[in-house]
Amino acid sequence: MTRKDTAATALTLTDARRLRADRARQVADVLRRRVLDGDFADGALPAETALVAEFAATRNTVREALDLLRAEGLVERCPGVGTVVVSRKYPHGLERLRGLAETLREHGEIVNEVRTSGLIAPPREISARLRLPAGEPVVYIERLRSLNGLPLSLDLTYLARDLGEPLLAEDLAGTDVFVLLERLAGQPLGHAEVTLEAVNADPHSAATLGVPRGAALLMAERLTHLSDGRPVDLEFIRFRGDRIAMSGLLTRN
Amino acid sequence: MTRKDTAATALTLTDARRLRADRARQVADVLRRRVLDGDFADGALPAETALVAEFAATRNTVREALDLLRAEGLVERCPGVGTVVVSRKYPHGLERLRGLAETLREHGEIVNEVRTSGLIAPPREISARLRLPAGEPVVYIERLRSLNGLPLSLDLTYLARDLGEPLLAEDLAGTDVFVLLERLAGQPLGHAEVTLEAVNADPHSAATLGVPRGAALLMAERLTHLSDGRPVDLEFIRFRGDRIAMSGLLTRN
Repeated sequence: MTRKDTAATALTLTDARRLRADRARQVADVLRRRVLDGDFADGALPAETALVAEFAATRNTVREALDLLRAEGLVERCPGVGTVVVSRKYPHGLERLRGLAETLREHGEIVNEVRTSGLIAPPREISARLRLPAGEPVVYIERLRSLNGLPLSLDLTYLARDLGEPLLAEDLAGTDVFVLLERLAGQPLGHAEVTLEAVNADPHSAATLGVPRGAALLMAERLTHLSDGRPVDLEFIRFRGDRIAMSGLLTRN
Repeated sequence: MTRKDTAATALTLTDARRLRADRARQVADVLRRRVLDGDFADGALPAETALVAEFAATRNTVREALDLLRAEGLVERCPGVGTVVVSRKYPHGLERLRGLAETLREHGEIVNEVRTSGLIAPPREISARLRLPAGEPVVYIERLRSLNGLPLSLDLTYLARDLGEPLLAEDLAGTDVFVLLERLAGQPLGHAEVTLEAVNADPHSAATLGVPRGAALLMAERLTHLSDGRPVDLEFIRFRGDRIAMSGLLTRN
């Protein structure tokens, strides 16, 4: 028995013992990656027979895998054409601190709809994170951010007053807050602490972002500091799960 | 008019123009952070009247904010007690490459249920990412990982054969793959490329992870390299959104 024979045998045994749902998930994960990488240049996935061969899977398993990606809103079945990519996920770097327009410049235009803005008396937690005395007003800005006309994220932003107030007079619809902050502070941003979670969209957030109720959102909380270390910008960001993937590099030591 | 008066006025004006749902979201985001930080030591959130004062919000807004957190499975309303924290989100670092047991050691015991393992003939995409010739078998391991008896993640793992085969004889139920890989390779791991997405759980993944159908999952794809640069471990990981938050540091330059 050659090494290859052993492998093939093991695969068959494993396959026979496993539920089709398990095998479909395995196939779907690999296909999701290829969609993410833009591997299907013309937008069409390979025919089912080709996928059956590539994954050494049954036709039913391949169909169930495609169903999973369809449920995620990534692909759609088109009569006479096959399965096509219908949603594009945009890459957002997890290493460098970049604004959305800076990050996605090559993918299109970011437009920010400012839903509200102004001075508020912040809750204690916000004051503490921005290292401000309790009760000191901060600037609050709420923006719905769209890429190429489709909503991408809903951002709730708290800014230290000395930078936030002049910022309100700037072009918030067309410019990243990061860029404005650096201009107004006269120094570059330094670092940000970010926390990522997956949450289901509540009905109102879903309607605002144009997704079904309960859709998975990538929720980011990000506290950004100037290069001198002062925290100036605290944001709570709901990204549409079907439009953003975050990528980064981890090191062992 | 003092500066403080200006702020208070602005807050009122802003508030009056906005929907309660918008204000509730704003309050919920701050409370979510405090739950995440373990701020409520005895597990009980402050009384509604205290929250009304802290957030300068109406009682209805505070109630709607608590409803949002309840829908996320973070808190529950207990008659006679108030609102209590019912789910704990565990922090997972986004900077250092760590296994789950290494990361969460202080929070409890990680147990891995090996759902399947063995040699398979991988799809092209897997071979390419692991820089293996097409058709060369790889080791596949599927694990349901639990912390303190409750499911945390479902991991689909592809390993280069030379390390993966001896790894199958090791204690996979009680040891991180990372630790085993370093022991078998005789060298530390180097870096990993990671991509994070938010997806809704399909019915079978939901049942496996013990969450409602459609629950938000934090999905990670991670390609781990040895310190000599060779990619050896490709994983597709579905984390329960209600049990994991990823945190890291971003720098501007």
